[in-house]
Amino acid sequence: MDYQSVLERIARDVAPQVGSGRPAEYIPALAAVDPRHFGMAIADVDGKVYGVGDWQRPFSTQSITKVFTLALVLATGGDSLWEQVGREPSGNPFNSLVQLEYENGIPRNPFINAGALVVTDRLQTLTGDASSELLDFLRQESGNPDLAFDPEVAESESAHGDRNAALAHFMASYGNITNPVPTLLDHYFWQCAIEMSCADLALAARFLARHGLRADDSRLLTRSEAKQINAVMLTCGTYDAAGEFAHRVGLPGKSGVGGGIVAVVPGRCTLCVWSPGLDERGNSVTGVAALDRFTTLTGLSVF
Amino acid sequence: MDYQSVLERIARDVAPQVGSGRPAEYIPALAAVDPRHFGMAIADVDGKVYGVGDWQRPFSTQSITKVFTLALVLATGGDSLWEQVGREPSGNPFNSLVQLEYENGIPRNPFINAGALVVTDRLQTLTGDASSELLDFLRQESGNPDLAFDPEVAESESAHGDRNAALAHFMASYGNITNPVPTLLDHYFWQCAIEMSCADLALAARFLARHGLRADDSRLLTRSEAKQINAVMLTCGTYDAAGEFAHRVGLPGKSGVGGGIVAVVPGRCTLCVWSPGLDERGNSVTGVAALDRFTTLTGLSVF
Amino acid sequence: MDYQSVLERIARDVAPQVGSGRPAEYIPALAAVDPRHFGMAIADVDGKVYGVGDWQRPFSTQSITKVFTLALVLATGGDSLWEQVGREPSGNPFNSLVQLEYENGIPRNPFINAGALVVTDRLQTLTGDASSELLDFLRQESGNPDLAFDPEVAESESAHGDRNAALAHFMASYGNITNPVPTLLDHYFWQCAIEMSCADLALAARFLARHGLRADDSRLLTRSEAKQINAVMLTCGTYDAAGEFAHRVGLPGKSGVGGGIVAVVPGRCTLCVWSPGLDERGNSVTGVAALDRFTTLTGLSVF
Amino acid sequence: MDYQSVLERIARDVAPQVGSGRPAEYIPALAAVDPRHFGMAIADVDGKVYGVGDWQRPFSTQSITKVFTLALVLATGGDSLWEQVGREPSGNPFNSLVQLEYENGIPRNPFINAGALVVTDRLQTLTGDASSELLDFLRQESGNPDLAFDPEVAESESAHGDRNAALAHFMASYGNITNPVPTLLDHYFWQCAIEMSCADLALAARFLARHGLRADDSRLLTRSEAKQINAVMLTCGTYDAAGEFAHRVGLPGKSGVGGGIVAVVPGRCTLCVWSPGLDERGNSVTGVAALDRFTTLTGLSVF
Repeated sequence: MDYQSVLERIARDVAPQVGSGRPAEYIPALAAVDPRHFGMAIADVDGKVYGVGDWQRPFSTQSITKVFTLALVLATGGDSLWEQVGREPSGNPFNSLVQLEYENGIPRNPFINAGALVVTDRLQTLTGDASSELLDFLRQESGNPDLAFDPEVAESESAHGDRNAALAHFMASYGNITNPVPTLLDHYFWQCAIEMSCADLALAARFLARHGLRADDSRLLTRSEAKQINAVMLTCGTYDAAGEFAHRVGLPGKSGVGGGIVAVVPGRCTLCVWSPGLDERGNSVTGVAALDRFTTLTGLSVF
Repeated sequence: MDYQSVLERIARDVAPQVGSGRPAEYIPALAAVDPRHFGMAIADVDGKVYGVGDWQRPFSTQSITKVFTLALVLATGGDSLWEQVGREPSGNPFNSLVQLEYENGIPRNPFINAGALVVTDRLQTLTGDASSELLDFLRQESGNPDLAFDPEVAESESAHGDRNAALAHFMASYGNITNPVPTLLDHYFWQCAIEMSCADLALAARFLARHGLRADDSRLLTRSEAKQINAVMLTCGTYDAAGEFAHRVGLPGKSGVGGGIVAVVPGRCTLCVWSPGLDERGNSVTGVAALDRFTTLTGLSVF
Repeated sequence: MDYQSVLERIARDVAPQVGSGRPAEYIPALAAVDPRHFGMAIADVDGKVYGVGDWQRPFSTQSITKVFTLALVLATGGDSLWEQVGREPSGNPFNSLVQLEYENGIPRNPFINAGALVVTDRLQTLTGDASSELLDFLRQESGNPDLAFDPEVAESESAHGDRNAALAHFMASYGNITNPVPTLLDHYFWQCAIEMSCADLALAARFLARHGLRADDSRLLTRSEAKQINAVMLTCGTYDAAGEFAHRVGLPGKSGVGGGIVAVVPGRCTLCVWSPGLDERGNSVTGVAALDRFTTLTGLSVF
Repeated sequence: MDYQSVLERIARDVAPQVGSGRPAEYIPALAAVDPRHFGMAIADVDGKVYGVGDWQRPFSTQSITKVFTLALVLATGGDSLWEQVGREPSGNPFNSLVQLEYENGIPRNPFINAGALVVTDRLQTLTGDASSELLDFLRQESGNPDLAFDPEVAESESAHGDRNAALAHFMASYGNITNPVPTLLDHYFWQCAIEMSCADLALAARFLARHGLRADDSRLLTRSEAKQINAVMLTCGTYDAAGEFAHRVGLPGKSGVGGGIVAVVPGRCTLCVWSPGLDERGNSVTGVAALDRFTTLTGLSVF
């Protein structure tokens, strides 16, 4: 398939809506981003990358890195993670605290904030330095040794971190967080503050299209574990819009409030799209539209 | 692929756990079924059927028919259905009433009871006889003119119908049910009481693997609508275990408390498995295990 | 104490705010009432009645009659009622369905709709004709043989009764409603549709100030049962504003969406105030203000 | 009234059930207390104290001190507190986090943990040293200069403080907590760790029976503010059993998990009872029974 032509076609098709939606506003560093950016990249399973627009410009990955943290925990610590965090969609438009309470401190899935805190806590326990471990991994998989944290974003997240502190203490009260809460929050906020481009992310996520194999062909995950992550992306990867994303796009995907979305066509390729304007559920308006066009043009949905 | 050999291999592999779990007990007609039944069928896109065990023995379809009612409403009334019912997983281990209240009478998805009531209400409005319309459709697609309702099951459901009556009246108070509640409940209970075999169901569901084409090659749904139903099956088709089902099986599926599960491999085939013993979330223990074996043996997961 | 002077003083003090708030709008018969009505009556324990304004004009009692139905059930059936309904405030600004679900069909208290349905169901079982029994009792206690149901209100309630039907079916699914739901709803709606004046209600409620003695000095309730009803009125009698009512007024009280409020000074007197304009929590704006003035002027709060 | 005889009669009547229930177990210092203690004291409005059993033995006041912190905040900062915390019963058998979320960080009332954290935060802002201010006040009102914190209890609370930390951070995320969370928690845990006897507490609470006047006859609260505190004690003072406490006892009361309960007969006297065995809702089994006997024997209920 001629991915480059597809990308250029998509860029033309979504051009009228680039700039729609509103950038995340809860921290200044994100609110200041120009909403008219648009970039998209595809990495095929052989590592060839195609791109259009701002596909090489770094942006704040935010929740997208939760996919990689999850992969590292499964690779290092195995399936026992699933005793500490569920795999079901959260289905709660309000907030995860309610659900957490009913389920005795076990988050519904690894992509809601509570779940991601548990996964990060576990990576911290397994490695002693969760955020550095993650950054090293992303540098290797993307082939980009310059990837770095944005300290301004990390500090800004920390300054607005009361809700995550509440979640962490709450789960600690059930014994489901074991590192000291301030340490955990530091690593959590740093991993949200990694800057990457569409090209970097499409490359870094390739192990999900390659049934668990890393860029150097060593095995990160078993075939079954790679499938598990794709499944949890499809059912839980786009906040409270997972059903609609499956409906419109039909691919495993993970979005971030920085405006990026990573998606996977198992066995074929990985995609990353970026445009900062968000819809009311926190997903990139143009990003979802571009992925919708992709599956329509190529027929490459999983359904 | 040699589906017959695969089925025989699966039957051997799951034999030790046939009889596990407990049949649904809330109505006598279901509780009385012998839990040691096991049957499985595959229908390929050309209409050839393969089977093993009790694959030709009729059982109570229960919630499985919700897939077909949904398809008929989309085919007849189009996308406006999605203004009356959502497409997001319910994520609520307790009960749908709570969620319904927070969302002003709009059910989260068409497969929870509240959502299925809305879909049935709409089919009743569109056709004037929802349950007969459904039965006719299933007879045509399965090629089995003897399909019928089990009146004992329908009456038993009706006698235990207070919770569904509560849901229907509750949504009526929001204006989201338009037929008289007793009429609606009749059609709802009748459609749950249709008896079909694994072979019948695998054949009847083929339009989902054939991107919307019926058995006679006429078009029931657009390609996009067929994809939509597969997406909602994957994210919402197995009660509060959709995440785990996606994780283990990785196929769109819809289960019923009669012990049946229908699953779809888009572009390839449809499957139906039946074994009455249920797990604590209402899905057939052996049925899920058999589908898990299927995707492991064939690699035919969507992920 | 010179109750007549107190009433006249209150009427002058609240005059500027008579007409504030909005009459209940969910049924036409209530919405059509002129919000500028204001009446207030006091009945002392000897049966002498004092009044001001529209104190002899009948209005729709609505939820106020729940106090009397509760008293009749305790008098006839005794304490076993408390196994079917709780005595705790509901504390839920949204709706009672959520709470009902968490507590397996046992309503939190007898004054939320769910609880009043259980109490009415019980009275129906105990007497065979709940609404007639109630009307007879009210006629005797008020000494007014002309008290009657307003059929227009009852039919209007019934036409908007889906939410109450939902509650009743929901509790029936837990076995906590035993009469047929349509029969129960009829009696429930009729008892809400009784018309009474402030004078009638103040007289009818005197058994609560007289530690259980009826107008004819026969015993309706034990001293302890009378105290129980006053306690539940104080903690649960004014919808989600019971805390604020206790705070401002400091008397057991029960309000109705017709704009009436009955209050009790144990050992001394009963009061009834009526003014149709409601606040956002369903209590009469001027009614609460008038009772607030009463306790301030007389010092007759329970605290 | 001969309070001493009444107390001796109560002590005899409840003797068979002293030792029932279980001491609080979440911190070792409370779990170690012998459940067979029982003491009760009455202070009349003139400051005369009567007692029986272990009425002079100090115990851990726990949540009882929330009454005094609330009084100090109203006395110092006035009514604006009610913009930060509600006055309605919580009505939630599960936990206050859920409710807090639905109500945007405004706790339902000042006696649930979330509400008490807000009140303490406010006292800290108003005085700069909340726990010392409280201790000074209690020493003056009880006339006992030896009252002190139990450091073992305070440290133990702190070591099990994740849930309170979660609540505080959660409300901070809504801007409803202004001091640093660790500082707030210190003051909160210290005030729970004050040791007092029944005599001390009955004396210290006298301002509630004296319409706001302190022991030295100076005014702490207006008559209306004193009434407000009594109202909130009656509707919210005994966890999720406020309705039942009103029903059985019929007095404003506040319990603590140390096994103490303070109650008020407005205009007459204050009571304090202590016995460490708790029921499943956290109130002293024998304490409630003793207060029930008191109102039955004396007729001094507010209803």
